[in-house]
Amino acid sequence: MEVTDQETKTMPQPITMKGGDGPLSYTKNSSFQKGVVDATKGLMIHAIANKLDMEKLCSQTFRIVDFGCSIGPNTFFSLQNIIQAVEQKRHQTNHGNSATTPEFQLFFNDHSSNDFNTLFESLPPSWPYFVAGVPGSFYGRLFPKSSIHIGHSSNALQWLSKVPEEVVDCNSSAYNGGSIYCTGIETEVAKAYATQFENDMETFLNARAEELVNGGLIVILMGGIPDGTSLSQTAIGKFYDLFGSCLLDLTNTGLIKEEKVKSFNLPLYFPSAKELKALIEKNGRFSIESFDEITEQLKGVAALPSAQNYISHVRAGFEGVMKEHFGHEMVDEFFAYYGNKHLECGFVFGENAAANTLIFMILKRI
Amino acid sequence: MEVTDQETKTMPQPITMKGGDGPLSYTKNSSFQKGVVDATKGLMIHAIANKLDMEKLCSQTFRIVDFGCSIGPNTFFSLQNIIQAVEQKRHQTNHGNSATTPEFQLFFNDHSSNDFNTLFESLPPSWPYFVAGVPGSFYGRLFPKSSIHIGHSSNALQWLSKVPEEVVDCNSSAYNGGSIYCTGIETEVAKAYATQFENDMETFLNARAEELVNGGLIVILMGGIPDGTSLSQTAIGKFYDLFGSCLLDLTNTGLIKEEKVKSFNLPLYFPSAKELKALIEKNGRFSIESFDEITEQLKGVAALPSAQNYISHVRAGFEGVMKEHFGHEMVDEFFAYYGNKHLECGFVFGENAAANTLIFMILKRI
Repeated sequence: MEVTDQETKTMPQPITMKGGDGPLSYTKNSSFQKGVVDATKGLMIHAIANKLDMEKLCSQTFRIVDFGCSIGPNTFFSLQNIIQAVEQKRHQTNHGNSATTPEFQLFFNDHSSNDFNTLFESLPPSWPYFVAGVPGSFYGRLFPKSSIHIGHSSNALQWLSKVPEEVVDCNSSAYNGGSIYCTGIETEVAKAYATQFENDMETFLNARAEELVNGGLIVILMGGIPDGTSLSQTAIGKFYDLFGSCLLDLTNTGLIKEEKVKSFNLPLYFPSAKELKALIEKNGRFSIESFDEITEQLKGVAALPSAQNYISHVRAGFEGVMKEHFGHEMVDEFFAYYGNKHLECGFVFGENAAANTLIFMILKRI
Repeated sequence: MEVTDQETKTMPQPITMKGGDGPLSYTKNSSFQKGVVDATKGLMIHAIANKLDMEKLCSQTFRIVDFGCSIGPNTFFSLQNIIQAVEQKRHQTNHGNSATTPEFQLFFNDHSSNDFNTLFESLPPSWPYFVAGVPGSFYGRLFPKSSIHIGHSSNALQWLSKVPEEVVDCNSSAYNGGSIYCTGIETEVAKAYATQFENDMETFLNARAEELVNGGLIVILMGGIPDGTSLSQTAIGKFYDLFGSCLLDLTNTGLIKEEKVKSFNLPLYFPSAKELKALIEKNGRFSIESFDEITEQLKGVAALPSAQNYISHVRAGFEGVMKEHFGHEMVDEFFAYYGNKHLECGFVFGENAAANTLIFMILKRI
């Protein structure tokens, strides 16, 4: 038994959000993600309460995991919402008497380089649950067999286990030297990314299928693109194009070397609903109990308070991956430049682009 | 249900070892503790294998906890030794066939201010176990009911949940203004410390009794004093007297304020074997399966390589508690002064003192 699989080991550096609780930290710059948690709260509580099979899941200890938890506080809100759904279902189904009150054990999972110190220090005071942090990639086994009742993952599964090797190999037909992401017209590049996502999802689902009890649920929130729309037409696609163009611009000033930009691609993927459903069906170990594509609710969420906050938000998410590839000395200047160019272009999350979707789904272990 | 109890909340600041992996960190300055792990390895493996009831503990998942794990690497060695003992017993009792191979889930517990980031980053590569970090005081519940098979605690239970309030209250008959520890002749001070230890052990045992499965074991290693010997006669007592005298000396230079020294006491206690056994028997939820007082083996362990290493070792353990009370600006100068005085006095762990004991015991949940 290996807790992390081979694929994870070949990943040069796990992606984690900026730690601590300073002004540029993820803790202070994750209002978009908080908006997503809030926008989906009602839907999630209703869907979990609806799909939970309390007869099967009746247990002295009820174990819930957040896969890709980052450093909070959103992970606390999400798990609190799940507990609320479980409690609601227990009371509806006459499991609400004190003799069968389960104890909740909550697991927070992220890469070992995640700032667990900040996560633990910011746990809600007097939370009446047992908690634990679990370091390691969710593209591999993290828990004993049949030990988890509900898994959750929000804004995490778009991160691939690694950049597809072909796209940074200048001898490959899928080489993506002029771009940092699969927004270009190269079908080989898009195919390499899609294959990586397919492999990663298969690994993720197989690991979770072992860990979840029979009848256990997994709740997934992740970014997607509308069926029939190409990524380059969407707001996220345009965001990455702008981000990549800043890197290329700064090769002219000498801040960044051109070959470093050519070897840089983001380990990210946004599937369409059709594509994602097909992968889950092919895997065959989960039934799709609930599947929603959310766009309307996201418009309010994305209206962040100011351009400066938006830039800090982007930095909290991408500083780690930038430092790893380009070195820490370029980071301040890069984000200052990106901030200016972002303001010049005058869009926040791409007003002139097709809306991305947020995929919300509940899978049941069969 | 409260994960941490009231007593824990009144503790001004949890005691944790110095984090990171720099030259003054606990990671690099815990060779004494490693010596203790090594010196007791054979005894521990033999005793666990002897006392483990595999019929009762047969489970798909075998859960082991280190209470007060600090930041490694000793916690990894200790838990590895326990796993070795479990595996040995499984093979002896024909549970060694693959159909019943359990999966090991290891929990590392310490205060939330412990440096879990360093702990997680230094996990042995390719360890074939599931791991999790659990933040919180072990003087309170940390795990669901009947979920743990073996608990372990090494060099941790001598830390009380708090300094007894009376000893830093100048209006109390147990006021200990002239000393930082219960090495003086004041019987009221000694009694206050003993009562605090009694309360803390009771809380610890009650919490573990809930968490352990019936027949589960808890392995405890902790410092003690020989029956009939007073703490002030022992090496540890003399060490704290020296430590306290350095604080008083430095009030003359203005580095430390006298009133700060008067309000400072260490939340530490070293029981005698007789005293400890009586507390466990009074609690009544565990049987004492094994109880050893080790002195001879410790002599080799305590022979640290150099005086400088010894001072770094002391600093790794006490820097946190010193900073909390006196402020961080005094720390370098204090330990430099302490180092010199230690060399002048010419003893390492007190050659002219009575030897302290290491208590090794195995308790079984009944």
